[in-house]
Order: sequence, then structure tokens, then C-alpha cells
Amino acid sequence: MQYFDPESFKDIEIAPGFTAHFVHTGNMTFSYWTINAGAELPGHFHPHEQVVNMIEGKFELTVDAETKILTPGAVVIVPPNATHSGKAITDCRILDVFHPVREDYRR
Amino acid sequence: MQYFDPESFKDIEIAPGFTAHFVHTGNMTFSYWTINAGAELPGHFHPHEQVVNMIEGKFELTVDAETKILTPGAVVIVPPNATHSGKAITDCRILDVFHPVREDYRR
Repeated sequence: MQYFDPESFKDIEIAPGFTAHFVHTGNMTFSYWTINAGAELPGHFHPHEQVVNMIEGKFELTVDAETKILTPGAVVIVPPNATHSGKAITDCRILDVFHPVREDYRR
Repeated sequence: MQYFDPESFKDIEIAPGFTAHFVHTGNMTFSYWTINAGAELPGHFHPHEQVVNMIEGKFELTVDAETKILTPGAVVIVPPNATHSGKAITDCRILDVFHPVREDYRR
């Protein structure tokens, strides 16, 4: 097995107010986000399928022209190449899972 | 987008002490487990890559002959066809992600 101790992760700032650590597998990338209240993610898209898992807080997510307020336990499937943007209404923790691997998140 | 409201999920018992709800995407299956303290999962394997995300509680996981005690934030990659078993030391919440889709979890 590949085991990752919770103490071993070092978060890095990816965008203002968005810090994360990553785990890459053979087929998927896992992004564990900590987001500050008020931080905004501008619209973007990528060829990866993305699954947003809301862990803590309240996050406003827009995919194509549809907006949802995500609360803990909410799940969203963002299809490949769909434009999406978001804003943290409170401090948040989110787990995003991508398929295939996000090579641009390997550092 | 496909949006899943946290209130919309209905958990089902998959094994004694193990209840879950599932989300299937084009490429992955997400299993959101609630596990009772003391519940045990016998050794098994499958051709899917599996990523264990420890959300709450303490869980003893054995993959092949290696055992780890998982605490919140721990992540484990279980390779395809690796035999794995586990035991909930406390009540737990775990998110397992599989690639490809677990067709046997579609109901």
C-alpha cells in the first residue's frame, strides 16, 4: 500500500486564499483544499472529470451557467471541459478528485 | 453539472456495521461509509484501484501483510487486486474512491 500520514502533508498556496496538498495515483489526483472565506476561483476548465466533495463550510459553485451553494456532504460532478468558478462563503475544506491525473498539479 | 444534495442520500447497509451511499461518475465510484465501532471487513480484493480517505474516527487497515492505524486526514492507495481487510476501532466515516466504476455497487 501507499500510506500517507496526515502529519506528513505540507499545504501550498495555489491561488490567493486557496491552499492544498495533493495525492496522485495511477489514475486520479486528489486535492485537499483549505479555502479562506471570501476567496474566489475565476472561471476555468480542463479536460479532466472532477468530483467536488464538500467537507466543511459553505461554497458557491458555478458550472456552466448553473450555481449551487454547497454544504457539507454535497457532491458535484463537473464534466470534462465544463467552465466552473467558485467563491468561499465561509472558510471551507473541499476534496476534489480528478480523472485522469492532473499532471499540472505535480510539483 | 450533476449536483447531489446532502439530504438526498439514503444510506444502505452493505455489511454488518458498514452503511454507505454511492456516487458513480463516468470513471469512478465514490463510497461514503459510516462504520460502527468494532465492525470488521474480511479480506477481499478487486481489480479496481482504491483510495481510502479517512474522514472521522480510527480504523485499522491491512493491505497485503501491512497494517496501519488510520486517523482523520490519512490517505491510503490500495493497488488493484491487493488483498485488504479492516476493523473500525471507533465509529468512523471514510470516503473510498474507486477507478474504474464499481459496477457491483450500482443498485
